[in-house]
Amino acid sequence: MISGEIFIGRARQKSAEQFQAINPLTGKELPEIFFAADATHVEQACLLAEASAEAFSATTPDVRADFLDAIADELVNVSEELIARATIETGLPCARLEGECKRTVLQLRHFGALLRDGAWLDATINTALPNRAPLPRPDLRRVNVALGPVAVFGASNFPLAFSVAGGDTASALAAGCPVVFKGHPAHPGTGELVARAILRAMERCEMPNGTFSYLPGPSLALGQALVTNPHVQAAGFTGSRAGGMALMKLANERSVPIPIYAEMSAINPVILFPGALKSRAEELGRAFVASLTMGAGQFCTNPGLILAEAGPDLDRFVAAAAEALDEHPCATMLSPAIYSNYETGVAALSANSAVRLLTRGPDGAGCNQGRSALFSAKADDFVRDPALAHEVFGASALIIEAGHFSEIPSLVEHLEGQLTATLMLDTSDHILAGTLLPLLTRKAGRVLANGWPTGVEVCEAMVHGGPFPATSDGRTTSVGSLAIARFLRPVCYQDMPEGLLPDALKQANPLGIKQQINGKFSD
Amino acid sequence: MISGEIFIGRARQKSAEQFQAINPLTGKELPEIFFAADATHVEQACLLAEASAEAFSATTPDVRADFLDAIADELVNVSEELIARATIETGLPCARLEGECKRTVLQLRHFGALLRDGAWLDATINTALPNRAPLPRPDLRRVNVALGPVAVFGASNFPLAFSVAGGDTASALAAGCPVVFKGHPAHPGTGELVARAILRAMERCEMPNGTFSYLPGPSLALGQALVTNPHVQAAGFTGSRAGGMALMKLANERSVPIPIYAEMSAINPVILFPGALKSRAEELGRAFVASLTMGAGQFCTNPGLILAEAGPDLDRFVAAAAEALDEHPCATMLSPAIYSNYETGVAALSANSAVRLLTRGPDGAGCNQGRSALFSAKADDFVRDPALAHEVFGASALIIEAGHFSEIPSLVEHLEGQLTATLMLDTSDHILAGTLLPLLTRKAGRVLANGWPTGVEVCEAMVHGGPFPATSDGRTTSVGSLAIARFLRPVCYQDMPEGLLPDALKQANPLGIKQQINGKFSD
Repeated sequence: MISGEIFIGRARQKSAEQFQAINPLTGKELPEIFFAADATHVEQACLLAEASAEAFSATTPDVRADFLDAIADELVNVSEELIARATIETGLPCARLEGECKRTVLQLRHFGALLRDGAWLDATINTALPNRAPLPRPDLRRVNVALGPVAVFGASNFPLAFSVAGGDTASALAAGCPVVFKGHPAHPGTGELVARAILRAMERCEMPNGTFSYLPGPSLALGQALVTNPHVQAAGFTGSRAGGMALMKLANERSVPIPIYAEMSAINPVILFPGALKSRAEELGRAFVASLTMGAGQFCTNPGLILAEAGPDLDRFVAAAAEALDEHPCATMLSPAIYSNYETGVAALSANSAVRLLTRGPDGAGCNQGRSALFSAKADDFVRDPALAHEVFGASALIIEAGHFSEIPSLVEHLEGQLTATLMLDTSDHILAGTLLPLLTRKAGRVLANGWPTGVEVCEAMVHGGPFPATSDGRTTSVGSLAIARFLRPVCYQDMPEGLLPDALKQANPLGIKQQINGKFSD
Repeated sequence: MISGEIFIGRARQKSAEQFQAINPLTGKELPEIFFAADATHVEQACLLAEASAEAFSATTPDVRADFLDAIADELVNVSEELIARATIETGLPCARLEGECKRTVLQLRHFGALLRDGAWLDATINTALPNRAPLPRPDLRRVNVALGPVAVFGASNFPLAFSVAGGDTASALAAGCPVVFKGHPAHPGTGELVARAILRAMERCEMPNGTFSYLPGPSLALGQALVTNPHVQAAGFTGSRAGGMALMKLANERSVPIPIYAEMSAINPVILFPGALKSRAEELGRAFVASLTMGAGQFCTNPGLILAEAGPDLDRFVAAAAEALDEHPCATMLSPAIYSNYETGVAALSANSAVRLLTRGPDGAGCNQGRSALFSAKADDFVRDPALAHEVFGASALIIEAGHFSEIPSLVEHLEGQLTATLMLDTSDHILAGTLLPLLTRKAGRVLANGWPTGVEVCEAMVHGGPFPATSDGRTTSVGSLAIARFLRPVCYQDMPEGLLPDALKQANPLGIKQQINGKFSD
């Protein structure tokens, strides 16, 4: 059941400003009324988070792991209702949302397992050397601690996996940071159902009341108030470049600056190497379109740029891709705003004299129907016009035709930072690929061979990040184990009596975790 | 031999603008002429660094470890000349500089050992699960890679350990990042001798020519040009709050923002717990003055603030400290500018009606003689006047008298971020200390018991960092093993053929490092 309320911890509030969700397929407002949070609610939620920060960060990793598992259980319990609601709020197909729900649940459990393992604490000990000359060495012990309250912004394109109980929330809670969540106005019902699941888990696990608050609302001022609140110590955001840049600016201008982890924009270049293109142009073309059109192209890792040498093999790729695109039904986009931005982007490319429209996918019934689009341009024109390297969020891609493959490195050099870079290559392409890899490594957070970038695995080795402007901080990832590091800082204790040390650093090692002692790992 | 030249890699240049060092003891210019680098040299050095970045980062960790060891060897070879020059440029005593030189050498070797160990690469592997349902898992492998060229700013107060071959340079080179170094104008001769040592090591180890450049100069514009150069990917700075904040602003306003690691200002609170104060007030008072006056108080970790309950025990502490201060000879400060800032800060405290001057140390012969100063103030006044919490760089400290020890937490709460926080406590104080520790942990990068914060050990567990404004980024340290992490970012390779993977991620593990494979560490 959806009440439309604002949740300051477990306390529910209403407000004067109200809003409704839109079903993007019909373009009509859904009946439920939601109360929009404002600066007052931000202040209350952040105060409460601050008041709970010490107690929440002091819970043992096992207790927090149980809490994350409890959130996962609560999500499973309401998954049917959740998916039904998300379907009408986002236009995403049911099967896709079922997969996303499972992934969200798995992600919570992944951080639970990470917490129990304890390596994330990075417990590092140098024991005292009292007889060292000329000066004795004190006993020094370092451990990671929680940053404090974290603001998390829901993303529209993953209403579950990158929203209320998504990766940012899961990793911040895992780190021991209370979360004040800004709900995305495009899926407020879904958001509330998830928020309620978290709050039930909070109650079941007896977590402090300020551990989680949920502030839905459509206004920019809400997010601004959140990022500038003095109690907030970091923020996680997935969304547009303009939105992320605005938050970065606010965060940097605070009297005490805080880190912003904004995942913003990428066109995820795919390089077709000559050998691969020759041996399997048609197969690549069809697989490309399958990746491009997935979820109406509304993935951060959507392959929006193809780089290849012009010629008959590329023509075969284009023909197969165009054919596949023509056959691929259009899909409802997430919101009228996203649809309108998409159409604006496609129109700008269509109007660009240096760009050739290869084909657009079929139109469909209903509102906000994203018709996929395939363009091509010459390498020289791509380098000349920076607009061609801008992300068009949706199923639009640009194929860049190089006169010769040797021009590709300079095209890659020309690119901004990316979430992913992909190499389609056969064994005969390895030498060529080897010379390009160092450059690709500098440009992207994840470099793929013979796969498509859509699909981000939750595991230890994942990096879902990349140099600016793919993200605001290329040293981090928002998916996978390492995401927890964003909300931690190291603290060193010197000659601290055993009884006063955090458990992770005690000689007795009551948490039973791996400790690095004088450069060697304990068993 | 000192030529005063600018070093763009191994190429030497002169410039129209010249400057000289000042011997702070005599206040007179030293005879050697130095050429000031300008924006043109910045451009050349950064271009060269960028051109060398790929090759330098591709050197194996062992090769870079040998390079760091070679720098250490070259420093040892010139240590006598180095210390003699540093003495006249900084006014620091010879014994102190001998210690600092050894520390600098050890620090280079520490990062060498770290490189050989390989754990810093964080090689993390998830092998493919081709049969997983509903979707197979690709092979995913993550490793840390170098950020690219790094700008490092020399600090005046540690002409060796935090300057040309200091911690920032050592950790950036260890990470595989070329360094463009801005030499501090207060010790240009020392700087050049160290730069020449690095360049000799670079030649001996056949490192790319852009691995290190040395740009001495007194102008702010030089540093600004460096931080805004598009090839520079990160910067390390130790200095004033104003200087660090200016660099942060420039770095954030770039079209591609970069991380700035600025270590800026701290007053390093020391809390005297009742039991300790009762049992050893005099001993604490004397030890406090020894730490306060070390190196004329010109340490980032200088204990500038004492918090304690007013009463006869604190009076004993104050009396012993005042007596020790009266007996402690004054010392030459690093530069006329630092001396003048110190005197301004002391004068401001002296003129503050809420502050009582307890005593000043003796005056001495020569210029720029820093007379230590001890002040006290009431807790209420400390909270009322933010100026009382500002750093006075030098041997000046303020003792805050609380009406009751229970006021101490609110005083700590009132403090900005700190490099260190220290507890002087006996066993009888442990319960009281336990309640205060979580707050101290949020305020400081290093929390000490019964030691003094001056003295920063180079080891695995050290954190020399802390929440803003102690540093610009409380998630990092500028001393110890973890300092290398500032210049690294993670990259994930997906389904990359073995031959194209970085060595650290190869199945064959040619580097012989620890790899985490599917959550378990290899042997």
